[in-house]
Amino acid sequence: MQATMPKIRFRDPQIEMAHGAGGKASRRLIEGLIVPLLCDSPTGPLGDAAHLMMNGAPLAITTDSFVVKPLRFPGGSIGELAVNGTVNDLAVSGARAQSLVVTLILEAGLPAETLEAEVRAMSDAARRAGVAVVGGDTKVVEHGKADGMYISSCGIGRIIEGVDIAPQSVRPGDRVLLSGPIGDHGITILLARGELGMESDLCSDTRSVLPLVEALAAAAGPAIRWMRDPTRGGVATSLNELALDCGLGIHLSENRIPVRDTVRGACELLGLDPLHIANEGQFLAVVAPEFAEAALAALRAAPGGGAAEIIGEVREQPAGAVLCSTLYGGTRVVDMLVGDPLPRIC
Amino acid sequence: MQATMPKIRFRDPQIEMAHGAGGKASRRLIEGLIVPLLCDSPTGPLGDAAHLMMNGAPLAITTDSFVVKPLRFPGGSIGELAVNGTVNDLAVSGARAQSLVVTLILEAGLPAETLEAEVRAMSDAARRAGVAVVGGDTKVVEHGKADGMYISSCGIGRIIEGVDIAPQSVRPGDRVLLSGPIGDHGITILLARGELGMESDLCSDTRSVLPLVEALAAAAGPAIRWMRDPTRGGVATSLNELALDCGLGIHLSENRIPVRDTVRGACELLGLDPLHIANEGQFLAVVAPEFAEAALAALRAAPGGGAAEIIGEVREQPAGAVLCSTLYGGTRVVDMLVGDPLPRIC
Repeated sequence: MQATMPKIRFRDPQIEMAHGAGGKASRRLIEGLIVPLLCDSPTGPLGDAAHLMMNGAPLAITTDSFVVKPLRFPGGSIGELAVNGTVNDLAVSGARAQSLVVTLILEAGLPAETLEAEVRAMSDAARRAGVAVVGGDTKVVEHGKADGMYISSCGIGRIIEGVDIAPQSVRPGDRVLLSGPIGDHGITILLARGELGMESDLCSDTRSVLPLVEALAAAAGPAIRWMRDPTRGGVATSLNELALDCGLGIHLSENRIPVRDTVRGACELLGLDPLHIANEGQFLAVVAPEFAEAALAALRAAPGGGAAEIIGEVREQPAGAVLCSTLYGGTRVVDMLVGDPLPRIC
Repeated sequence: MQATMPKIRFRDPQIEMAHGAGGKASRRLIEGLIVPLLCDSPTGPLGDAAHLMMNGAPLAITTDSFVVKPLRFPGGSIGELAVNGTVNDLAVSGARAQSLVVTLILEAGLPAETLEAEVRAMSDAARRAGVAVVGGDTKVVEHGKADGMYISSCGIGRIIEGVDIAPQSVRPGDRVLLSGPIGDHGITILLARGELGMESDLCSDTRSVLPLVEALAAAAGPAIRWMRDPTRGGVATSLNELALDCGLGIHLSENRIPVRDTVRGACELLGLDPLHIANEGQFLAVVAPEFAEAALAALRAAPGGGAAEIIGEVREQPAGAVLCSTLYGGTRVVDMLVGDPLPRIC
């Protein structure tokens, strides 16, 4: 029996696509219904991974499900996303993935070669990320009830020594680092669906960010205040969540944020902000100012980190909000993602 | 790069419902495709949970997905199954669940009250089982693409002291114990779908079996050779897998196997064997003969274990098979489940 009734603030009558988009509606669902009921001993809002004690030693655990459509796209596939996404959630929580378990929900009629390709993709991604798949489960539902396949992945990992991150440790003056160009994954998925009628050689950025996180940790370990991989909802949503959690303002410089021309063009066509587009191989870090240049140099020197940038800084004001100085000299408010312009991106 | 190419023996052209039913087709898929490709360092066929070393101490990890239809049924619901199923997979591997993470795949249009009911069901089941839910993930797919909701659950647990089980440790003369009546869950789901046009007060047996496993461990710890919760594919499939894994014969006495009249009646009507019907709150154990009576007494003395029985024993022959002496004095071969007579039971 519970001593106190949890507060259920979620009042939407039914689930909509936006509740899965990673933006405002997702946060309302998670914080208004799921966390109050399910997580009895809240340690604040759920982060990318939970850290807990097991047999007297700390470990990190995380889980994610993947419903991306189509299953394969330039640069990756659902199986690769499932492994990299879990490795990355652990990495940005300050942990090194050790073991994964996966569940497959398959649709009757799925060609065996499609399944084989995704199992191989998981295997290859796990090998590249240095993680072992130690177990799993497979279910089958009727044709039409799972859009090919869905994957859930759960990973446990060891804490990276000297890294202890928390939004509450963020201070005014801290710098915001970004590992590379944004929006590649989301726009690749959109183009792969043929919805824009555009051709391009854009690829998803799906990869393990652990090597970059380790390079950062080696250069600036205790100076890292916070990390996040800006997947659903993009950089804008991740930084708004940080701003709310630490109660400070985040100031971005638009001209420092790397965005490929194809991504920028597609966003202009659709009226989307690249800051709202999902990434699967980038991460954000907030670092104490005196370590920012060393952190940037370490990221740029690591393979795949050549395009890293310091994209902004933390200030006292405006508390709980994100601002961006534009290319034209103005300043705009960067909000969380609202609605779901790009459904089923991961 | 891999040094040796894994052997892919799975040759079915596409996925069918039977591949998810837990019987022969499931084993062919898992052992013929998924394990060879995905689990590089096989420690034999995947058990209920993997045991591994983390920070120098052992832990158990398991995962399962749940696609049961309907979402709610007499005695339980998908949320309760997701928690109990994961706790039970850990328990029969000889581990005490400590922490769970869950993923929800929701369908657009799902009433919020349905979701709330399942989140509450998970929360209640977790509290009863003494396990904490420490994280999760939520995705939304279009209406019609997830049949309401699917849940995946992953749990980690601590090894129960003095229990070390492996099919290879099973010896001729060992006794087979069963915790209670079989088939309640599968037949409850069938009746809940209205497919039989029968009314009954049968309920799913979904529960945590950890208290029973702990009672057994206290009475017969090192004498426990093997445990399994006979979910999809039922007792017949679990014992056939054991027979194959240990290369011995398993002899059951039909008159010792507890089956409720409703379950027996429904099975006769459908031409099904209660030994093939899924359970969600029972477990099988193989125990050294000198501890069998003490083990049975301990199970029967524990809450919910009053109907436990010794249902058979292990012999040298027939190697790799399960036999059952019938009520009429004959003997029949008990095979694994073939096909999928009861789809989406968990």
